[in-house]
Amino acid sequence: MMKALVYGGPGHKTWEQVPLPDLQDREDAIVRVDAVTICGTDLHILKGDVPEVESGRILGHEAVGTVLEIGEGVREIAVGDRVLISCISGCGRCRYCREGSYGQCLGGGGWVLGHLIDGTQAEFVRVPFADTSLYLIPDVVGDDDALMLADILPTAYEVGILNGNVRPGDTVVVVGAGPIGLAAITAASLFSPGHVMAVDLAESRLEAAKQFGAHTTARPDEAAELVRQHTTGLGADVVIEAVGVPETFQLCTSLVRPGGRVANIGVHGKPATLHLETLWSQNVTITTGLVDTFSTGTLLKMLATGQLHTHRLITHRFHIDDMLSAYDTFGRAADTGALKVTLNRE
Amino acid sequence: MMKALVYGGPGHKTWEQVPLPDLQDREDAIVRVDAVTICGTDLHILKGDVPEVESGRILGHEAVGTVLEIGEGVREIAVGDRVLISCISGCGRCRYCREGSYGQCLGGGGWVLGHLIDGTQAEFVRVPFADTSLYLIPDVVGDDDALMLADILPTAYEVGILNGNVRPGDTVVVVGAGPIGLAAITAASLFSPGHVMAVDLAESRLEAAKQFGAHTTARPDEAAELVRQHTTGLGADVVIEAVGVPETFQLCTSLVRPGGRVANIGVHGKPATLHLETLWSQNVTITTGLVDTFSTGTLLKMLATGQLHTHRLITHRFHIDDMLSAYDTFGRAADTGALKVTLNRE
Amino acid sequence: MMKALVYGGPGHKTWEQVPLPDLQDREDAIVRVDAVTICGTDLHILKGDVPEVESGRILGHEAVGTVLEIGEGVREIAVGDRVLISCISGCGRCRYCREGSYGQCLGGGGWVLGHLIDGTQAEFVRVPFADTSLYLIPDVVGDDDALMLADILPTAYEVGILNGNVRPGDTVVVVGAGPIGLAAITAASLFSPGHVMAVDLAESRLEAAKQFGAHTTARPDEAAELVRQHTTGLGADVVIEAVGVPETFQLCTSLVRPGGRVANIGVHGKPATLHLETLWSQNVTITTGLVDTFSTGTLLKMLATGQLHTHRLITHRFHIDDMLSAYDTFGRAADTGALKVTLNRE
Amino acid sequence: MMKALVYGGPGHKTWEQVPLPDLQDREDAIVRVDAVTICGTDLHILKGDVPEVESGRILGHEAVGTVLEIGEGVREIAVGDRVLISCISGCGRCRYCREGSYGQCLGGGGWVLGHLIDGTQAEFVRVPFADTSLYLIPDVVGDDDALMLADILPTAYEVGILNGNVRPGDTVVVVGAGPIGLAAITAASLFSPGHVMAVDLAESRLEAAKQFGAHTTARPDEAAELVRQHTTGLGADVVIEAVGVPETFQLCTSLVRPGGRVANIGVHGKPATLHLETLWSQNVTITTGLVDTFSTGTLLKMLATGQLHTHRLITHRFHIDDMLSAYDTFGRAADTGALKVTLNRE
Repeated sequence: MMKALVYGGPGHKTWEQVPLPDLQDREDAIVRVDAVTICGTDLHILKGDVPEVESGRILGHEAVGTVLEIGEGVREIAVGDRVLISCISGCGRCRYCREGSYGQCLGGGGWVLGHLIDGTQAEFVRVPFADTSLYLIPDVVGDDDALMLADILPTAYEVGILNGNVRPGDTVVVVGAGPIGLAAITAASLFSPGHVMAVDLAESRLEAAKQFGAHTTARPDEAAELVRQHTTGLGADVVIEAVGVPETFQLCTSLVRPGGRVANIGVHGKPATLHLETLWSQNVTITTGLVDTFSTGTLLKMLATGQLHTHRLITHRFHIDDMLSAYDTFGRAADTGALKVTLNRE
Repeated sequence: MMKALVYGGPGHKTWEQVPLPDLQDREDAIVRVDAVTICGTDLHILKGDVPEVESGRILGHEAVGTVLEIGEGVREIAVGDRVLISCISGCGRCRYCREGSYGQCLGGGGWVLGHLIDGTQAEFVRVPFADTSLYLIPDVVGDDDALMLADILPTAYEVGILNGNVRPGDTVVVVGAGPIGLAAITAASLFSPGHVMAVDLAESRLEAAKQFGAHTTARPDEAAELVRQHTTGLGADVVIEAVGVPETFQLCTSLVRPGGRVANIGVHGKPATLHLETLWSQNVTITTGLVDTFSTGTLLKMLATGQLHTHRLITHRFHIDDMLSAYDTFGRAADTGALKVTLNRE
Repeated sequence: MMKALVYGGPGHKTWEQVPLPDLQDREDAIVRVDAVTICGTDLHILKGDVPEVESGRILGHEAVGTVLEIGEGVREIAVGDRVLISCISGCGRCRYCREGSYGQCLGGGGWVLGHLIDGTQAEFVRVPFADTSLYLIPDVVGDDDALMLADILPTAYEVGILNGNVRPGDTVVVVGAGPIGLAAITAASLFSPGHVMAVDLAESRLEAAKQFGAHTTARPDEAAELVRQHTTGLGADVVIEAVGVPETFQLCTSLVRPGGRVANIGVHGKPATLHLETLWSQNVTITTGLVDTFSTGTLLKMLATGQLHTHRLITHRFHIDDMLSAYDTFGRAADTGALKVTLNRE
Repeated sequence: MMKALVYGGPGHKTWEQVPLPDLQDREDAIVRVDAVTICGTDLHILKGDVPEVESGRILGHEAVGTVLEIGEGVREIAVGDRVLISCISGCGRCRYCREGSYGQCLGGGGWVLGHLIDGTQAEFVRVPFADTSLYLIPDVVGDDDALMLADILPTAYEVGILNGNVRPGDTVVVVGAGPIGLAAITAASLFSPGHVMAVDLAESRLEAAKQFGAHTTARPDEAAELVRQHTTGLGADVVIEAVGVPETFQLCTSLVRPGGRVANIGVHGKPATLHLETLWSQNVTITTGLVDTFSTGTLLKMLATGQLHTHRLITHRFHIDDMLSAYDTFGRAADTGALKVTLNRE
């Protein structure tokens, strides 16, 4: 038996004893969870916003761990390996996986952990398609840094920065300075933008944005004017949506210059209004995306070379047995100032 | 004096005597209009939808003509040249023009003809920035074919096909089978899509779409089911919006596959609803655009080699003195079956 | 036991009885060969040009067949399936396979059939990594058409046309009008080039090039002048090397325009001279490549829709028992006019 | 009259009195030279390696100055402006200029200053196509920093880093640690490579490379082994040739990984050997290029934001009257340690 965070339907979760996972497929691995974190998406699930998650499901899709057992079809991962458990699994065979787009896997992968199958907020977890869903962690990389590559950093990098095609010298606006927005600011710096502006309502988040590298900050109602000043009236080259509500998306499309790009990272629950009556002639590109994790290997390499310092996103640390406290702290981020909270085995 | 189609405020137009144009800038040319056409945008102006067009303005932004006079700063164009008058002028110096994005010119170009300055629905017209706004027509290319390259073909090609990144074997859906939709179907064929589906309400337009190369056709209410059947449930690789109302745009975003592209060509007067609650995770790219005309030279070359046959878009021909009849025929397209109507000097 | 074409060291080959292949790995499949062809590379091997091929090796890396047996790790392919055997296998897990670059596989794939392991010129063959190396053939596609997708068509398409970035209206020169050059001419047409010129020494091949869609043809000593005439002195947009000797490669780099591309398909045995003293300032891009086969699925789809007719490359057909006669015919192509020769089980 | 550096045929140069330049075309500007530098190419000209340079020509194609007079066709530049004189002029009208490829201008631009017309190593200079060849310098940018954007930085950035497609985390090898190699190391950092290795024979240059940001250095004979160690045997993602002799180019093609890129910046006087017998199957891309200067505006913006510090390339400063001493110092760089030498009016 092991302890796990079990979803009990909207509003209900328990940290309880459940059976240990076992291999169900030749390409599975069983991993002992050494460090795990909680995602904003987990809170959405608990609110009942993700109806395909069934009662009884173990939540969690981000972890670092140690491989205990592998199926006989696993080639690249060995027992004893220290691995990153990616939020996205890939069958490696379907048309999307063959293009590195594991997030859209048609062969049983994609986002399944803590969603369609049991997840990582537990002492042990079964990971399908182990060869293409687990990543060896270089010795010089710590658990905390690696853990941020399970979801938040690849998401910020692929869905925000690469989709937004940030280029040297660009003016980049990041709307939303929560964890994912701060990760986007971090990832943007890899392409040497000329100016990064963070937009948020909360003063504390804007303060954090500056520490993560934003050159200026703005409240939503100031953003349009400040962007105008910074770009001689033209608008931003790239605008990144990192909130997930209609108002912020609409703000993004109002801040972008002709020929610019809006990259949506936010998880939306409602439609937004797209002002095509002005945008139709503006040569604007809008992208959406679930992370594909094609960049996970590269980001791990950048942790190893010291180019990224992702543990800065972690504000609170807990023992894994304090899972409910960690949820409480993360769930009240406005009060606690939590960005990412992590739980460790030891 | 000369005859010209003069806008007299919403609902009013006259074909009347006006003064001849003269050179106002060193880079201007005066061109005798040999063939001219009417754009859907001209109808929008007449409805009052384009408020920056002032009363007294000569309309029209598409023509073929003969150069009568040039400013002393014009280098590439000579008196006597047979030229295409592009709907877009470019200063050739601003940051957008330097990237070939003349449609977004910041230096006095962009869409100005028949909009901010007098246009081509006249016997003579002044064209600014002649070197980067006029195109020599090869001898083997007829006026009718060339005329379709003033606006509709580059728009379909750049804003529809290139923005949509149509690739060999793709399933492409074109929503709207009016002139611009048919031009998009024509232009799509340059990239050998595997299947082109045209969507429209009017049976006659769907019939036309087939003649222009659509493999199948659908009414809007059938489109989703037919696309699903054709793509084993996945959705279309590329969807092109060629109408310009919220319903058709929303249809487009519902037809595209994960990882696919929606290229908007339609001129919109109202916002649309963007269903981010489903699209956020779908890796979808949405583009908008005014034509930049970077492809005009290439398209002219393809007319010369016989790769394009654009005169097929022309359904009605008039003498230029019958401008008002031409407007009437074009304005009642549902009755007359008009696609493009042209007016010739002789 | 079965019959197979066995390499016996430089200059030696036999069609002899050998043991049947059996499964060696969980991801293997055993396939009955229904149709097979001979590649120019097989002739190179027989000359001793590919020293890593050991004596005793069964040659051949292109076939169409029926799956007889699969390992327990195979998910997508089933016994009884009619499949294309690709010249390239992919482990599906290494950094190259994750980008769709199976030709550079680091995990035991790449070009292995008839090279590092026994190949397809036999009655039966073991195919490793079956899920990512075999392709289901749609019912409407015949064996002959499909067989051309084992190597020659994806090579022409990926290494020639996509690397060369052929665009609508382009002037494309294909140097070498043997089978791979003709396949390149066929594949180029998917992007609507404005002019395709074939260059070869043999009149019969130039004749074939015209039938495959070349607009003009030239002997090597005429090519420079003809390209100049066709491009107002500028040079070709794209030049494709489809021979594999220094002289033809050097011809290619002399025919390309500033800003153009040279895509090398030819298999070279000797270095070439790169005239950097002129090319350094010409903004030229030169690419090389082994086929990656990321396009195989798309090309199969285009066979199914009737967009490609690849069986036109086949000039001679044999029963599989006449393997040695087929080699003789293919090896004396200058005399026999052979392009691709195929061998069928029945 | 004014003083100027006049080429007198191979081996001969004088700093002598010559007539003042005057406007010859409506789009010309006359600029007072405030700061000027010497390029390695000037030394090539003096050796007689650039035969199209005629005796009597004033050399120099890089400067910062003040506009004294403009032709009536100049719109964007005004008398009194402090400007960067780019090494490349662009007509702004030809097919290459329309794509931002001014280096390949067909309309009378390209590299003309100090080559086909009199250049910048003088007290005053006539600049053709002033609007597209001069760049306003922001107030916060000093002459020294700006001067490095006349040639060396855009060349390193466009021809080295952008052609090489340097990406975050990449292993980049720069062969040649002279001024252009150091500029390439500087420019590479804008894309956050994981590892930059500089290769040169001179210890002093390798020392300089470290100061400009190289992580490791190697002599040419060590490079292959060190690259192998750093990349687990695979090879470098991007290799940049910054010397211009056959040996260094060949070294570059031996260091690149399968699927990697070799970007040639070096000015070559002789052909190199291209080892196609191994490269043919390696999916390698090789690029060449004269700078197009499409990035000059962006680089100026990055100077203004403090993202680039290009004056670090300047090792020696002279008064403009000491032109011959400056040439001497620059010409004996191995002894003097000169990187870029600059000459100032005051």
